[in-house]
Amino acid sequence: MSHEICEECGVFAVAGHPKAAELCYYGLYALQHRGQESAGIAVYRKSGIYTRKGMGLVSDVFSKESIRDLGGEMAIGHVRYSTTGESRLENAQPITVKMWRGEMSLAHNGNLVNARQLRHTLEVQGSIFQTTSDTEVIPHLVAKSLAGNTLDALRFALSQVRGAYALVVLTPEGIFGVKDPNGFRPLCLGEVEGAYILSSESCAIDAVGGRFVRELEPGEIVKIGHLSASLQSVRAFPPGRASLCVFEFIYFARPDSDIYGLNVHAARKALGRRLAIKAPCDADLVTGVPDSSLSAASGYAEEAGMPYEMGLVKNRYIGRTFIAPEQSMREAGVRIKLNPLRRLVDGKRVVLVDDSIVRGTTSRHIVGLLRAAGAREVHVRISSPPYRYPCYYGIDTSSRGELIASAMEVDEIRKAIEADSLAFLDVADLEDVLGKRVGSLCYACFTGDYPVPLARDFDGDCG
Amino acid sequence: MSHEICEECGVFAVAGHPKAAELCYYGLYALQHRGQESAGIAVYRKSGIYTRKGMGLVSDVFSKESIRDLGGEMAIGHVRYSTTGESRLENAQPITVKMWRGEMSLAHNGNLVNARQLRHTLEVQGSIFQTTSDTEVIPHLVAKSLAGNTLDALRFALSQVRGAYALVVLTPEGIFGVKDPNGFRPLCLGEVEGAYILSSESCAIDAVGGRFVRELEPGEIVKIGHLSASLQSVRAFPPGRASLCVFEFIYFARPDSDIYGLNVHAARKALGRRLAIKAPCDADLVTGVPDSSLSAASGYAEEAGMPYEMGLVKNRYIGRTFIAPEQSMREAGVRIKLNPLRRLVDGKRVVLVDDSIVRGTTSRHIVGLLRAAGAREVHVRISSPPYRYPCYYGIDTSSRGELIASAMEVDEIRKAIEADSLAFLDVADLEDVLGKRVGSLCYACFTGDYPVPLARDFDGDCG
Amino acid sequence: MSHEICEECGVFAVAGHPKAAELCYYGLYALQHRGQESAGIAVYRKSGIYTRKGMGLVSDVFSKESIRDLGGEMAIGHVRYSTTGESRLENAQPITVKMWRGEMSLAHNGNLVNARQLRHTLEVQGSIFQTTSDTEVIPHLVAKSLAGNTLDALRFALSQVRGAYALVVLTPEGIFGVKDPNGFRPLCLGEVEGAYILSSESCAIDAVGGRFVRELEPGEIVKIGHLSASLQSVRAFPPGRASLCVFEFIYFARPDSDIYGLNVHAARKALGRRLAIKAPCDADLVTGVPDSSLSAASGYAEEAGMPYEMGLVKNRYIGRTFIAPEQSMREAGVRIKLNPLRRLVDGKRVVLVDDSIVRGTTSRHIVGLLRAAGAREVHVRISSPPYRYPCYYGIDTSSRGELIASAMEVDEIRKAIEADSLAFLDVADLEDVLGKRVGSLCYACFTGDYPVPLARDFDGDCG
Amino acid sequence: MSHEICEECGVFAVAGHPKAAELCYYGLYALQHRGQESAGIAVYRKSGIYTRKGMGLVSDVFSKESIRDLGGEMAIGHVRYSTTGESRLENAQPITVKMWRGEMSLAHNGNLVNARQLRHTLEVQGSIFQTTSDTEVIPHLVAKSLAGNTLDALRFALSQVRGAYALVVLTPEGIFGVKDPNGFRPLCLGEVEGAYILSSESCAIDAVGGRFVRELEPGEIVKIGHLSASLQSVRAFPPGRASLCVFEFIYFARPDSDIYGLNVHAARKALGRRLAIKAPCDADLVTGVPDSSLSAASGYAEEAGMPYEMGLVKNRYIGRTFIAPEQSMREAGVRIKLNPLRRLVDGKRVVLVDDSIVRGTTSRHIVGLLRAAGAREVHVRISSPPYRYPCYYGIDTSSRGELIASAMEVDEIRKAIEADSLAFLDVADLEDVLGKRVGSLCYACFTGDYPVPLARDFDGDCG
Repeated sequence: MSHEICEECGVFAVAGHPKAAELCYYGLYALQHRGQESAGIAVYRKSGIYTRKGMGLVSDVFSKESIRDLGGEMAIGHVRYSTTGESRLENAQPITVKMWRGEMSLAHNGNLVNARQLRHTLEVQGSIFQTTSDTEVIPHLVAKSLAGNTLDALRFALSQVRGAYALVVLTPEGIFGVKDPNGFRPLCLGEVEGAYILSSESCAIDAVGGRFVRELEPGEIVKIGHLSASLQSVRAFPPGRASLCVFEFIYFARPDSDIYGLNVHAARKALGRRLAIKAPCDADLVTGVPDSSLSAASGYAEEAGMPYEMGLVKNRYIGRTFIAPEQSMREAGVRIKLNPLRRLVDGKRVVLVDDSIVRGTTSRHIVGLLRAAGAREVHVRISSPPYRYPCYYGIDTSSRGELIASAMEVDEIRKAIEADSLAFLDVADLEDVLGKRVGSLCYACFTGDYPVPLARDFDGDCG
Repeated sequence: MSHEICEECGVFAVAGHPKAAELCYYGLYALQHRGQESAGIAVYRKSGIYTRKGMGLVSDVFSKESIRDLGGEMAIGHVRYSTTGESRLENAQPITVKMWRGEMSLAHNGNLVNARQLRHTLEVQGSIFQTTSDTEVIPHLVAKSLAGNTLDALRFALSQVRGAYALVVLTPEGIFGVKDPNGFRPLCLGEVEGAYILSSESCAIDAVGGRFVRELEPGEIVKIGHLSASLQSVRAFPPGRASLCVFEFIYFARPDSDIYGLNVHAARKALGRRLAIKAPCDADLVTGVPDSSLSAASGYAEEAGMPYEMGLVKNRYIGRTFIAPEQSMREAGVRIKLNPLRRLVDGKRVVLVDDSIVRGTTSRHIVGLLRAAGAREVHVRISSPPYRYPCYYGIDTSSRGELIASAMEVDEIRKAIEADSLAFLDVADLEDVLGKRVGSLCYACFTGDYPVPLARDFDGDCG
Repeated sequence: MSHEICEECGVFAVAGHPKAAELCYYGLYALQHRGQESAGIAVYRKSGIYTRKGMGLVSDVFSKESIRDLGGEMAIGHVRYSTTGESRLENAQPITVKMWRGEMSLAHNGNLVNARQLRHTLEVQGSIFQTTSDTEVIPHLVAKSLAGNTLDALRFALSQVRGAYALVVLTPEGIFGVKDPNGFRPLCLGEVEGAYILSSESCAIDAVGGRFVRELEPGEIVKIGHLSASLQSVRAFPPGRASLCVFEFIYFARPDSDIYGLNVHAARKALGRRLAIKAPCDADLVTGVPDSSLSAASGYAEEAGMPYEMGLVKNRYIGRTFIAPEQSMREAGVRIKLNPLRRLVDGKRVVLVDDSIVRGTTSRHIVGLLRAAGAREVHVRISSPPYRYPCYYGIDTSSRGELIASAMEVDEIRKAIEADSLAFLDVADLEDVLGKRVGSLCYACFTGDYPVPLARDFDGDCG
Repeated sequence: MSHEICEECGVFAVAGHPKAAELCYYGLYALQHRGQESAGIAVYRKSGIYTRKGMGLVSDVFSKESIRDLGGEMAIGHVRYSTTGESRLENAQPITVKMWRGEMSLAHNGNLVNARQLRHTLEVQGSIFQTTSDTEVIPHLVAKSLAGNTLDALRFALSQVRGAYALVVLTPEGIFGVKDPNGFRPLCLGEVEGAYILSSESCAIDAVGGRFVRELEPGEIVKIGHLSASLQSVRAFPPGRASLCVFEFIYFARPDSDIYGLNVHAARKALGRRLAIKAPCDADLVTGVPDSSLSAASGYAEEAGMPYEMGLVKNRYIGRTFIAPEQSMREAGVRIKLNPLRRLVDGKRVVLVDDSIVRGTTSRHIVGLLRAAGAREVHVRISSPPYRYPCYYGIDTSSRGELIASAMEVDEIRKAIEADSLAFLDVADLEDVLGKRVGSLCYACFTGDYPVPLARDFDGDCG
C-alpha cells in the first residue's frame, strides 16, 4: 500500500429488515475502504446465529448464494484492515460465541488499551482464547456478568474495558450499538424502510438507501429490538473527554461521509486552504497524493490561485492476487502503483500535498518520482501536524518507534525526504478548522496527550 | 459500469528481455483500464509459443507460478474490454495458431470494417474459425500468403483488411508491431534495458521502468528481431488520412499517458477550460463524474474561478464477483457505485462536467442523484460534441441506434436528462485544443465522416 | 453417500521430525476414508502454534505452499466425517486455544457422553464456546486445572469426561496422545526416522514409511517430548471395561490396517466365511456392496464354494462439487453411484453381502437395482448383527430413531428391503471371530449394553 | 498413476432431450475412468452451438449453474486422458468451429495415423490450426468438401483419414456418430425417454437410465435428427478388418460395460481363469493389482482353488491438487497410492495378477512392496501377452521404445521385475476367450500386425 497508516475496521448492522443480510453486504461494501483483509456477516434467524467470514474483499467472501443462505432479519457485519504480516482468518469478525446467556456475536472497531491485563486476569481464572484480537475479551466479560439482562451484562463488561470501541452486538433479543465514553471511533444511527441501521460512517447509510438519524453519543448504548419496533438508548457510562479520532477526517473516512455534521471532503479541502494560507509557496502547480490527499490539494490550489493538477496517477486494480514485483525489478524502475505525469511536472516547481508523514519513506519515494519526472522543485505540504506519538486506540502505525517526527525536527525531515521545502499544519489549525465544528477531537498522536491512560505493556491488536 | 462506452482493448509486447513475461504482466496491468473482461500473454521460448489466457483481471488470470512457467524472452499480451453479454473465453487474445510458416500469435486493438466479407470469402474457400473475433481473419490471410517471409505475408494479409488495427504479432523470428494506415488506435515504441517494447499507451512503458521512444506511424510495420538487437521499420502501406481516435483523449487513455506528445490529463483539462469559456455558467461549484471527467472538471473550475468539488464519490471496489442489487433494491435507493455529497451540494447550483453523453441514461441518473441530494440547479457541461454516429473502428456503444444525440437536439437532450442547462463542445473546439497539436483526429462519431468506408452489413466484434 | 453410517474422524501426529507437517499431510491423506468434511493441521514452531484448516479433502485444503509455510517439527492433524447438514468450518479441528498455560491444540476422534453437562457447568461459570463440538470442553477443563504441568492438567480434565476419546494434543513442550479408559477408538504409536507418530490407524504409519510400535492402552497417556527424544507413558486412568468399537472392524477402518494385531481385511473375510457357514444359501453367485463389504463377500464366496462376482460397480469420482441429480432424474433412472452388471446377474440367484443395515433404505435400493438388472433371487447376508441401539461414542447414525432393526424382526426387515432371504451374524459370532483375538469389543449398538453410562439428555456432536 | 498405460478418451451424445446437457454431464461422469485431464460439453440451442470445457474432472469443470446455462436439446461431450506433461486446455474437446456450412462441434476418441500428412497438406493450402490434436484435421477436411449436405461432407472428410475414430459431431441439423472402418474404438447407441444416445461404453447409457440399443458397425455413420425423431444409418465406408482394441477388455473399459454382448468384468475373470489353467502356481494366496486386475485375480483364484485376498490397498482420494511426495520422501518409504497388507502376505507365497506389463517399472515396484511386506515368494501372472509393439490407434504408452517386452524374453523380464516366476497369456488365449465371442480384435500391440498401415513419421497426439 502506498500509505503508511494501516486502515481501520468498519462495522455495520441492520435490525428488523427482511433483507438484513443483503443490506449488510452493501453496507460493508460501502465501508470497504476501512478494511480489506477480511469481511464477515452474522445473522440471527429463528434457529440461532449464523456467521460467515473469510479473507479478502466483501465481494470475494460472499456470493449471491451465501447471502441468500444467511437470511435472517437482523445482521451485523465487519470489514478488517489489512496487515502486512500473516493472514489470520481466526481474527476475522464478527466473533460469535455461545455462553449461558445464549448466543452472541460481536463486531468491533477500535482498540482496548487494557486488553492484555483483562486477558491475563481472565486466563488465570481459566478462560481460553481462540483469537489474538482484543475484541475477544468482551464476550468473556459478558459471560462473567451475573446481570439479569444483556444490556446490564454489556454495561458490566464494558465498564472494565478502557480504550476505543465502536461496537455492534447481535443477540436473539436484538442488536446493541455501543460507543466508548470518549467516542474515539465514529458510529452513527440510520433508518431504512422502518428498520434501524448502525454504521461506522454515514456513506454506508446512503449506500443502502437509508436516512442518517444521528451520531451515537460517547458512552451511549442503543438497543434495537428484534423487530426494530423499539429503540432504547442508555447513557451507560459517564462520558469521558470527547475525543473523536482526528484521523477520521484527515485520512480514514470516505469523502462523502459526514461526521458530526461536517463533510469529510469539505473538511479536507478546508485544511488544504488553511495550509495554503499558513505555508504559501511560489510554485507552478499543486498536486496531491491520490486518493486521500486530493481534497486537501484542491483546497490548497484554490486558495493559492495555482493550477490543481493530477501530478500522480494511481493504478486502481491492485488486488490480493496481484504479484508484487521483486526487489530487482523495483530497482530497475518498475512502477506499479503510482506514475507521475512527466509532461506536466517536467521543469516545473511542484507543491505536493499529502495528509500525513509517518515513517517518511513514502514521502521520500514520491518526491523522488517527481524529481525523476523532471520537477525542478518539490515543496511538500502536509495537511496535519507532525505525527510524533503512537496511537493506542486503533491506528496501526505498522512499525512503532519508526515515527520520523518523533526523532527529527521539521528541517531534518525535509532533508530526509529530499524536499525543497516542507510545512505542516499544527494542532491549533486542526482545532480551528475541525474541532470547533464537531466538538473535541483526539490529537494524541500529535501531542502525546492521551485521553485514556495506557497500560504499561500495551501491545494490542486492533479490532 | 457507470460509463456507457465500452472500453477498448490494450496490447503490449517485449522482445529480447530475460523477464519478458513478467514485464508483459506489469505492462498489461498498467493497461488494465482498457479492458477488464479477459487477459492473456503468449511467449516464445525455444520449444515454441505458449499462451495463457483467462477471464477477468490481469491479477486474476496470472499467478506468480504461471508467469514463471511462461518464461521466454519475447512476449505479447492483451487485455480485452468487458461486454455486457455472455462471457467468451474463446474470444480472449492473444490468438495463437499453427500454420505452414510455423507458429504465430496475435493481439489486436481495433475493429475491421470488412471482417465479415473477408471471413465469408475465407469460409467459402474452406477455412474454419474458432472465435467470433475479427482478429481471427488476419492469421488466415497470413497463412494464405505465398510470400517468402513473415513481413511480406503480414503486409499481404493486412493489405486486404480495412479498419482499425494496432497489432502485435509474435513469431519465432521476432515481434511485429503494426499500426493501420489511418492510425486509429495508439501504439508506441519504448525501450527498457536494451529490449524493445510495444504498447498501446505510454503509461505502460513508464510502469515497467522503460523509456518512450516514439509513436508508430500510420501504416508502419516494425519488426523487432528475436534478441531485440535489431529494429526494422517498413512503411508497409501508403498512409491514409491520419485519424487517431479522439476518444483516446476524451475518455479511453490513462491521464498519465502522452499521445503524440500531448498528455492526456492536460488535454482533458484544456477541454474543460475551453468549455468554461464557451459555455459559462453562474453556479456555486463545479464537479466531475469520476474518474474520466475529473480533469475536465478541474479545468472548467479553474477557468471559471469556481470551486472544484468532489460532488460524487465512486466506490472503487466493484469486482467481477460483486453481487449487483436486484431491481427492487435499486428502486428502494441502494446506491452502490456513486454517492453524492449531500452536505456539499445541498441548496447549491452545480456544474456537472462529463466527458460524453451516449444514451443519456447515465446522465439522467446522475442529475437525479444530485437533485435528490438537494442541488438547486444542475448544469451539465460535456467536454465533447454530441455523439451522433456509431463507431465502426473499435468503440462498442453497446446498443446502437440508442445514441440520444442522433435523434434529439441539444435542448431535447437537456429535457431528457432533466438538467437545468446543457452545453457541448463542438468539433472545432476539439480540433483547436487537440487536433492542432497531434495531427489529424477521427471525429466520425460526431460528424459521420468516416475515414474508411464501411461495409454494408457491418456488425463486427471489437478485438 | 451409499452408506448409512456417517464416517468417523481420524487423528495423526508427528513429533521431532523436520518434515512434521508434510508427514502429517500424508498421514491424514491415508486416513481420508475416516472423514471427508474437513481437514486441518496444527504445527508448533519457535514462534508458537499455527493452524490451517478448511472444508473438503486433505488435498483440497492444503497446497504445496501451505504445507511448506506451516513448517515446524511437531504437528497434529485431523480429518472430520461428512455430515449431511450444513457445512461448519467452525467445527473443523484441530482446535487451537490460548490459555494461562500457553497455547494448546487438540484433535479428537470420539464422542463425550457428558459433554452437554460439562458444557453447562462451564457456561454457568462464565466460559464461552465458539464451536458446537464436544471437543471444546476439553481445553476449557484443562484451563481450569491448577496442576503444575500439562500432563496433570490433561489428567484432571479428562478425569471429568466420559465417553470415547482418541486424542492428540500439541503443546510447546510436546505432543500428548490419550486413549479413553475403555479404549473405544483406535490409537496407535509408530516410529519413523527417530520421530514418534500417533495415528488412528496403522495404515497411515505405513503410508509415511514408518514402523508400527504398539497400540495405546485404554486409559494411557503418552507424552512425546518436543524433540521426540523422550517417550513417557502414564496409566492416567484406571482402565474401564476394554471396549474397542467393533465397527472399526466391520466398516470404518481401512482393510490394510491392523488393530490389536488383527488385519481388518482378514477380519472381514473371516466374518464372511462365518456368515456362509451360519446362513448358507443355494444361489449362483456372491457379490458385495463396494467397497466395505467386498472382503466379507469374498470370504462368503470362498467358504460357500460359489463364484465371487463384481455384481455392482461403484463410480469412484464423486467429489464435493458433484451435481447431485434432481428427484425427477433419479426417478427416471439416473444411476450415478452404483451400477449393477446386468449381464452377470440377469436370471441369476444372487447372494448380496453387506456389512450392516441401519435404516434399510440403502439395502432396499440395492436389492431393487439387482432385480431391475434381472436377478431372479436376491439373498441378503449381513456380516454383523441387527443394529438396534444408537451409538453414543462417535458413530453418527444420521437420523436416530430410524434404526430399522430397533422396530422390526428379521423377517419384517426382509420384507421391507424386498429380499428373498435375509440373515445376520450375531454377537457371539463377532466375539468368536474378532473379540477373542483382540480383547473385549463394544457391541452396544447390537445389545444396548453401554460400557459407559449415558447422560439423560445426550445429543452430542461427534468429534 | 499406478498404471503405465495412459487412459483413453470417452465420448457421449444425446439428441432430442430437454435435459440434454444434464444427461451429458452424467454420461461423461460415468465415462470419467476414460480420461481425467479435461472435460467438455457442447450444446446446440436456437442461437447456435455453445461449448464449455476445462481442465480436470467432470465435477470440477461443471457447476449446477454452468450446466443450466448450457441448456439445449442436443449435446455432445468428451473426457480426455491425463498426460504426464504440460496441461493443454487448447486440446480439450469438443472442438467447435464455424465454417461455411455453419457451426460444428466434434468429440473424438482415437488416433489418426495419417494426421500429420493431412495436416501438412492442409497447411500448405493455407489452413491454420489452433490445437495439436489430431482431431482438428477433421473439421478442416469437412470445410473443404463441396458436398451438398453434412453427411456427405463428413464422408468426404473421413474417407481421407486413416486410423481409429469413434466420433460424435454436433451440427444444427442433428448429431452424427461415426465408427471407423476397423471399429478400433467402441461406440454404441442407446435410447432414453425417446431420445437417442451415443456413448463410448454401455455403462454410461445405464448411468442416465437409458437402454442399450446396439453397437455401431465399423464404417457406419448414424445421423440423429435434431429432435431425435429420426435415426438414419449409412454404411459410409467399406468395413475394414474388424479390429476392436483388445485393451478395452483388458484394461480400459469399466467392468459393468458390455462390449459386443460380452461383459467386461466377466471377460477379465475368464482371462484370469484361463491364466490359472495355463500357468498354475503352488502358492498360498492370489491377489490383484487394484483396480483393473481384480476381476482377473478373482478368476485365477477361483480356478486355482486358492484364496483371493486384498493383498494391496489403493488410496482412492488422489486428485489433481494432491501434493506428490518428493524423491527424498519416496526413498524414505512414503507410500501414498498402494499399501500391501503385511499381516496377510508376511511369510506367504503370493500370486500377483496384473493385466499387463508395459515398461516393467510398476511391476518391479509392486513386487518390491510385497517382498518388503514379508512375502516369501511372488509369482507374477499377466492376463495378456507381452506388450511388444507401440499402438498407433489411441493408446499412449508414454515413452515409446521403453516397452520392456520388445527387448527382453520372458525370463529376462522376470529377473528385471524380480519375480519368482512370471507367465503371460498368449494371443490364442485372448482369441479363444474374447475374440470368438465378439468378432475380430486388434492385437497389434502383441503381434505387430497393424490392421491399418502406418505413416512413416507418425507421432500423433491421441484424441
